Amino acid sequence: MPKPGIKHFGMNNSANSYSPGPEIPLREQELSKFSQTLQDLMAASAVESSTEQEMLDLEKQGLADRTQWLLNPPEPPGLLRAFKETVSPFGNKLQSLNRQSRPKRVVSVLQEVFPIVSWCQDYKAKKFKNDLLAGLTLASLCIPQSIGYATLAKLAPQYGLYTSVVPPLIYAVMGTSREIAIGPVAVISLLLSSMVQKLEDPVVNPIAYTNLVLTATFFAGMFQAAFGLFRSGFLVDFLSHAAIVGFMAGAAIVIGLQQLKGLLGISHFTNKTDVISVMEAVWKSLYDHHWNPHDCILGCSFLIFILTTRFLGKRNRKLFWLPAIAPLISVVLSTVIVIITRADKHGVKTVKHIKGGLNPSSVHQLQFNSPHVGEVAKIGLIVAIVALTEAVAVGRSFASSKGYHLDGNKEMVAMGFMNLVGSFTSCYVATGSFSRSAVNFSAGCETAVSNIVMAITVFISLEFFTKLLYYTPVAILASIILSALPGLIDFSEGFRIWKVDKLDFLACIGALLGVVFGSAEIGLLVAVTLSFMKIILISIQPGIDILGRLPGTDVFCDVNQYPMAIKPPGILIVRIKSSLLCFANANFVRERIVKRISNKEDEDTKEKDGRTIQLVLLDMSNLLEIDTSGIASLEELQKHLDSKGIKLAIANPRWRVIHKLRLVNFVGKIAGRVFLTAGEAMLADQK
Amino acid sequence: MPKPGIKHFGMNNSANSYSPGPEIPLREQELSKFSQTLQDLMAASAVESSTEQEMLDLEKQGLADRTQWLLNPPEPPGLLRAFKETVSPFGNKLQSLNRQSRPKRVVSVLQEVFPIVSWCQDYKAKKFKNDLLAGLTLASLCIPQSIGYATLAKLAPQYGLYTSVVPPLIYAVMGTSREIAIGPVAVISLLLSSMVQKLEDPVVNPIAYTNLVLTATFFAGMFQAAFGLFRSGFLVDFLSHAAIVGFMAGAAIVIGLQQLKGLLGISHFTNKTDVISVMEAVWKSLYDHHWNPHDCILGCSFLIFILTTRFLGKRNRKLFWLPAIAPLISVVLSTVIVIITRADKHGVKTVKHIKGGLNPSSVHQLQFNSPHVGEVAKIGLIVAIVALTEAVAVGRSFASSKGYHLDGNKEMVAMGFMNLVGSFTSCYVATGSFSRSAVNFSAGCETAVSNIVMAITVFISLEFFTKLLYYTPVAILASIILSALPGLIDFSEGFRIWKVDKLDFLACIGALLGVVFGSAEIGLLVAVTLSFMKIILISIQPGIDILGRLPGTDVFCDVNQYPMAIKPPGILIVRIKSSLLCFANANFVRERIVKRISNKEDEDTKEKDGRTIQLVLLDMSNLLEIDTSGIASLEELQKHLDSKGIKLAIANPRWRVIHKLRLVNFVGKIAGRVFLTAGEAMLADQK
Repeated sequence: MPKPGIKHFGMNNSANSYSPGPEIPLREQELSKFSQTLQDLMAASAVESSTEQEMLDLEKQGLADRTQWLLNPPEPPGLLRAFKETVSPFGNKLQSLNRQSRPKRVVSVLQEVFPIVSWCQDYKAKKFKNDLLAGLTLASLCIPQSIGYATLAKLAPQYGLYTSVVPPLIYAVMGTSREIAIGPVAVISLLLSSMVQKLEDPVVNPIAYTNLVLTATFFAGMFQAAFGLFRSGFLVDFLSHAAIVGFMAGAAIVIGLQQLKGLLGISHFTNKTDVISVMEAVWKSLYDHHWNPHDCILGCSFLIFILTTRFLGKRNRKLFWLPAIAPLISVVLSTVIVIITRADKHGVKTVKHIKGGLNPSSVHQLQFNSPHVGEVAKIGLIVAIVALTEAVAVGRSFASSKGYHLDGNKEMVAMGFMNLVGSFTSCYVATGSFSRSAVNFSAGCETAVSNIVMAITVFISLEFFTKLLYYTPVAILASIILSALPGLIDFSEGFRIWKVDKLDFLACIGALLGVVFGSAEIGLLVAVTLSFMKIILISIQPGIDILGRLPGTDVFCDVNQYPMAIKPPGILIVRIKSSLLCFANANFVRERIVKRISNKEDEDTKEKDGRTIQLVLLDMSNLLEIDTSGIASLEELQKHLDSKGIKLAIANPRWRVIHKLRLVNFVGKIAGRVFLTAGEAMLADQK
Repeated sequence: MPKPGIKHFGMNNSANSYSPGPEIPLREQELSKFSQTLQDLMAASAVESSTEQEMLDLEKQGLADRTQWLLNPPEPPGLLRAFKETVSPFGNKLQSLNRQSRPKRVVSVLQEVFPIVSWCQDYKAKKFKNDLLAGLTLASLCIPQSIGYATLAKLAPQYGLYTSVVPPLIYAVMGTSREIAIGPVAVISLLLSSMVQKLEDPVVNPIAYTNLVLTATFFAGMFQAAFGLFRSGFLVDFLSHAAIVGFMAGAAIVIGLQQLKGLLGISHFTNKTDVISVMEAVWKSLYDHHWNPHDCILGCSFLIFILTTRFLGKRNRKLFWLPAIAPLISVVLSTVIVIITRADKHGVKTVKHIKGGLNPSSVHQLQFNSPHVGEVAKIGLIVAIVALTEAVAVGRSFASSKGYHLDGNKEMVAMGFMNLVGSFTSCYVATGSFSRSAVNFSAGCETAVSNIVMAITVFISLEFFTKLLYYTPVAILASIILSALPGLIDFSEGFRIWKVDKLDFLACIGALLGVVFGSAEIGLLVAVTLSFMKIILISIQPGIDILGRLPGTDVFCDVNQYPMAIKPPGILIVRIKSSLLCFANANFVRERIVKRISNKEDEDTKEKDGRTIQLVLLDMSNLLEIDTSGIASLEELQKHLDSKGIKLAIANPRWRVIHKLRLVNFVGKIAGRVFLTAGEAMLADQK
């Protein structure tokens, strides 16, 4: 057997100079002195051939010292303090503010709240040229998309345009991302319409429906701002990456199916969003000839045109502007075609009247006395989280590729205020759009000014050009939305998730199927539930690893992970495979260990040296926390082992664990057999 | 600085003889040879004064080998296999059965299913004497309690007696516990009545109510048997110890309040069980004089008598039989008093008619076509789990004090069958009673025969003595139930939970308040929810520990837990404080590390040696699992550190983690800086 603990030779003097308890750690110089002593002592011990017994004595002393360190840790921080640290409030920032003079302080606060104050100081004409170009490109994509998404949200088309004016302006002065493009997005539009239409029918009572959507927008903004102000940005992380991938793909499928109505010119359609209802409605319309082939031809041909430009844009990076302006070209061309051929007389559906002019105030439309207000607040909360998740994901990916830091909490405050102000100015929930942010990035935007340019362009269109959209066919809007959907379905990421983590993939597929066959909320619910069930499952997974020594080291490892590891004879080293020994797994772990000992077929330990197990060493490295059930279970295990004449020892208990074990005097019950590492326990056992 | 890695001297030959991958581990003898080599080489190296460079080269080789072991582990078992292991089916037992001859096999199966077959073979007269005495004592306590609990369950009194006949007999042949006393218990009676009376009023429609209770008993038995057969005994563990303590205390309070009806002879009482409703009803009755002072005097005096005997029994262990037979004495005495004084004419409420005779069949009373069948099945499930929890807790505590093993799954099968058969023979849910099992144990029972004796005694009483109970006052039953309640409230355990684990205490108090102010189900729901929220909270608790080297060792520990640990200069060693790097905490952990590096106030690392951080070492010892969000977060961290010229290394990744990191080629991204321990990483960094 390899001799463990040789590294401790001669270190005892240094170890002795420590008394347990919180003291100032030694300086480096002193330590290097000890290192010298160590080498001197080693040489000396070899030359003077001091007896092995002396060395063992020295080692023993070091071991005892370390056990004392282990047994007398400082009090671990309470749970409350731990959580305060997690959700750290403004403390630090306020302190550093107070140190500054007053005028400086004002500037600091302004810079903190409005990042535009910082970067506009060195904003140059060249940057503006880039931003102007990016902003115009963005606007050309944004105008047709906004109208399409508004119809997806079952609102009048102008609401989409309104939402592309005010929120981008607010974000430009408050947000920290430079590439994100703010406006209405497909998933949020779908989510809002699918939830609000349960409370109010958008066809029968469009005004009440619009009011509820605006109220939900208000709540969404409030929640977002609150998340940011209370620094609870981690809430956004509750939707796992896998769940988002699945949810987005499901939403894309559902949105695509919804577009069949516009694309085929179907007059009677279902209000439900699940695949089965929609396919039934489409099938019925086709069967009863309640559809219009002109719409279909027009829509499909422009869809092919847009997809072709997208393909060209992907092949040649310089042509990025082609897919970006293709939707606007399609709108213009198709409108001209309709006007020339008077196709609207042949049943081709057109957008008809869009109310022009700047966003009207909508303060009086917010419904806080409505009987649905609780439901609407819930919708606001869900939409707030989904919108933030999308925006933060978009912002983060561009920030990390450009190498600057995105403050999640500040982003949330910006998003919150932009939606709050939005809800007062006839906007529905806006967020960062995946597709448009990518266009903004490719178009070479430098700052959030591109958002301002876009907003102004949309505003000008609202003021002057809405009448021109009278003859724009609805089928074109459907094909524009359809063309944006493939970006939401990420097959390669889905495959990667499948490869890496099967349970994550389950959450992904669960979210997808939930959205496709149920509704958007069901999909979200499935995703969140599966994600958290996975956490519980893995956390309380009741299992044990058997450890063995890695040859040539003092390190003890799982014998399954490292087949070359060797189990010490007569000793069973068990590591609990969980971070929590609690009510849900403690009994199971105890029974496993007991079974392992009593198992007569355990050939590894018996055959080799004919020794039965005399010591069970519990390696508690994994264990971060133990509860009363866990302690009770350990006590039962100790009693059981005691009755069989087997000793129990523990190695490497973590802070909270050793604290609790000392509180209930479990350490006394196992006669103080507590060690820093499995290696030290072996050392102590030999003596 | 101490020289790390001295223990590796000369081990390289041995290490070289391993190639990575799953191979047969070396024999012990070979290993001891290596150990010899090690010592030889050490001496040689000292005497021959080989240069330090050579030794470093040797070490380096060992390090490289170990990294290869780490990077090429065998494939970790799939999740499915891990779960199969957890819920291990009959596999092993069936195999060992197949090896036996047929007659032996029959005996084996019989012994497996009916443990009585094993132990009745060496059952002796002396054992029977003890069991007889224990059984009779048990019966004298059981008869009045059964009647009382039946009224608590809002059933006719004879149902309690029925439940003390059939289930104990079945359990005696199938169960493995020797001390447990089977029969109706207070908590289950309360739980059943509080849930079933929502479906059917026990006063208006007693027959329909009884049928539903019997149906619930059938479902409870089915669920219990199923849990046992599918070896999912761990389900019982889902009620944490703390939650049970709180729930029991709350149930005791609620049951006690219910007894005020009988004790005060109140005629109009509420159906609700929460404190506020009950106190309101009591107050109203007292105010309107709808109560009977005779009942009160009779009940209170006998309550005092029973409590006094209990006190005496506790003081003097030999008088254990006194509190056990006190209830029967009270029943007999009070009945005689009522008969003599004709107190029933003065409004003292008596039990009146109890239907005598053996349990009638109740097969036709089971309601599977009722519209409530879903609800009833749910009630059955809840009651099944609570009943099992109580029985397993009772059985386990006695088994461990007598030093034999209790097979949880077999117990569940026994409980399940006894309740299934019970539901066919007019019994409601029976389980192991805390108080009666203690009496059984004190009375010196040897085997489950004491349960048989008790059942026969109860059966005889049913057959011949029920008429004698006609004049037994209801107040006595109330005082008997009341006297059993203090055993359910465990103040000292509650205090211990508070001392050890504040979150556990929250679950405990939550369960108590839920039962007292809501209902039994609400209490259970609160307890389970709080317990699982605690698991999630602790599992995803996003934090990091900063590690330092313990003086005199190669061990790296949390610098907060071990204030004497020394942080190496220029290196930040971070341990993730969670067993799961997942969507819920990955971003937070990443941001923490980034903040830690960029934090200019980090004096520990900067002031001492003027060096900034050059290497971040992630100690992954805690990390059992990582998901796609976790990997994405690690990749982002690596990118960020890279942009600042800081290297990232990882130490001690667990099986699944290293497997996944290799799958996504994260190991390649950090240039293979993967080490077995933090110590080895330090060693590699120095070279």
